Amino acid sequence: MTDEQARRRFAAARVARLATADASGRPHLTPMVFAVMSGRNAGVDTVYSAVDTKPKRSTSLRRLANIAANPRVAVLVDHYAPDWHALWWVRADGTGRILDTDLPEARDAIARLVALYPQYREWPPVGPVLAIDVAHWSSWSAAGD
Amino acid sequence: MTDEQARRRFAAARVARLATADASGRPHLTPMVFAVMSGRNAGVDTVYSAVDTKPKRSTSLRRLANIAANPRVAVLVDHYAPDWHALWWVRADGTGRILDTDLPEARDAIARLVALYPQYREWPPVGPVLAIDVAHWSSWSAAGD
Repeated sequence: MTDEQARRRFAAARVARLATADASGRPHLTPMVFAVMSGRNAGVDTVYSAVDTKPKRSTSLRRLANIAANPRVAVLVDHYAPDWHALWWVRADGTGRILDTDLPEARDAIARLVALYPQYREWPPVGPVLAIDVAHWSSWSAAGD
Repeated sequence: MTDEQARRRFAAARVARLATADASGRPHLTPMVFAVMSGRNAGVDTVYSAVDTKPKRSTSLRRLANIAANPRVAVLVDHYAPDWHALWWVRADGTGRILDTDLPEARDAIARLVALYPQYREWPPVGPVLAIDVAHWSSWSAAGD
């Protein structure tokens, strides 16, 4: 698939998985809901997610500590199906930034997330906001499209 | 959920996501099908996956190069649902080993994978086999169970 198709499939998904690594290179992995926004920085897609108020394990914010120490991240959307001809994935490799919620960029991201996920009415995204500037899209599909 | 419940939910899933990192700490992320086996090494669960013959991007084997350089990995199974009360995830943090397919451990893993996934009849798992020895299970569920 083209980068534009990959971007579109990724943006349409409801959940992605975020890989970070600490300063020593130990990887961490967490699911996240997200919104893709473009245009704030010319030519750059940014994937946003927000810390919400669902109950957390103490370790669940390790992603933020990891990004502070090592901003390189990968985000994956994949489609699994019993028919392996239908498998595909799209990965965004990029750089993470942690945004305080009083920044206009964070407020815009939260508004977009709330619009995409009505579930946030119950668990408001209190922040901080994670912004991932995508340096590279990559993708694969079993069908070769 | 208890470690045993987490292990069981993880093992019952059809797809997981594997995070690796290269020697410089740059994370990589890929979906994988897998089998969990226990008992080969007393008290240790091992997550196995195999390189199969589906068409690959040249970059899709970066996970193997990463593990050779940095064996620390994380594997995630998560459940997404529009009802966020139903969300859960289970993560296995551990150490990866790359096995040649002529090793008994690799042959056992491939037999188990083929039994779990009839799709391998079309795309045989030619190897190598990735074995991840789980050092720590962690889990979360919105329902708190």
